[in-house]
Amino acid sequence: MTKGIFITIEGGEGSGKTTLIQRLSHVLQQKGWDVMTTREPGGIPIAEQIRTVILDPAHTVMDARTEALLYAASRRQHLVEKVLPALEQGVIVICDRFVDSSLAYQGHARGLGMDAVWEINRFAIQDIMPELTLFLDVSPEVGLSRINAAADREINRLDLERHSFHERVREGYRMLLKRFPERIVSVNADRLPDDVFEEALQVLMDRLNR
Amino acid sequence: MTKGIFITIEGGEGSGKTTLIQRLSHVLQQKGWDVMTTREPGGIPIAEQIRTVILDPAHTVMDARTEALLYAASRRQHLVEKVLPALEQGVIVICDRFVDSSLAYQGHARGLGMDAVWEINRFAIQDIMPELTLFLDVSPEVGLSRINAAADREINRLDLERHSFHERVREGYRMLLKRFPERIVSVNADRLPDDVFEEALQVLMDRLNR
Repeated sequence: MTKGIFITIEGGEGSGKTTLIQRLSHVLQQKGWDVMTTREPGGIPIAEQIRTVILDPAHTVMDARTEALLYAASRRQHLVEKVLPALEQGVIVICDRFVDSSLAYQGHARGLGMDAVWEINRFAIQDIMPELTLFLDVSPEVGLSRINAAADREINRLDLERHSFHERVREGYRMLLKRFPERIVSVNADRLPDDVFEEALQVLMDRLNR
Repeated sequence: MTKGIFITIEGGEGSGKTTLIQRLSHVLQQKGWDVMTTREPGGIPIAEQIRTVILDPAHTVMDARTEALLYAASRRQHLVEKVLPALEQGVIVICDRFVDSSLAYQGHARGLGMDAVWEINRFAIQDIMPELTLFLDVSPEVGLSRINAAADREINRLDLERHSFHERVREGYRMLLKRFPERIVSVNADRLPDDVFEEALQVLMDRLNR
């Protein structure tokens, strides 16, 4: 069995995942833990090539199920080549998005159904699930305004569509929270980054010290 | 619902699928039927790109589950973009390999398990299954000797490995034959191409005239 600890960070756009992961990793390393941060495709050539297929702007006709299968394929390869070897060496792996993203985005928000998307992901990950998942729960208003501030622009028509999509993604995550109450911990991410970080660190340390 | 008829041709290497499909298509067209022959990825850009990822010789480390998910993704896109539109126009679609290939090769011969591979393919194809599948049942001896004759070379060490793999593929197909006796019809493909063609045509015409 694996000796390391597998942790995933989830949340909608503008929830502050990237910044949080950097800070958590930094603090854990200062405390002497061996930490690896990653995200799919994570520099794994096969997974990178799959990502290129998904993101090709010429692919306006990509079917939602094709896309979900490609994400699962990329996840499998990233897991086998990068995450599992690190866990086997006793490293704490913090991964930016994992199976819950597919369930919330493709399964719920895109309407493919969480159970169906779970089936193909179960094939991809077998029984490798994170020990802890931090869900950064951000409201669409706050998340989108952060993204717009970063891009230095005002709210436009596209944002209205994104708002309702973002709302469905959040709803999906909250369904997962009810389904996996032991694994997923929700953190209010509408607050200032320092507050989010303090709470997330507390949850993480509680789990590591168990 | 679809108005056309979806037919798939399955079998191991050297079973004579390609030649048979050409001849069947030719005869059906002469009889006035509208026929389209295809095989994955079938010129569908997204499916072609996925195939490129699968076949990249640099990918010696591709995990078997990654590969199975990529085949399912390619199948989905080919089905949605090419097969379904033709069926909706009343065309007879003859497809060289479909879901049974994944079940026999990845599921049984590669050891991933038929049920697991069936789950991801069910996600890919939903309830779109062929009305008739012709399984060209060739013995490894005959199949491999045909391939070697075509390549103008003698049996080598690699062929011995291929022989046992081919045997497992055949075993997988025969399991499917028991599982789907209504849909799959087995044709002895150790015989001369003319004999295989006559029997396959008979089976096909019986089904079309139902």
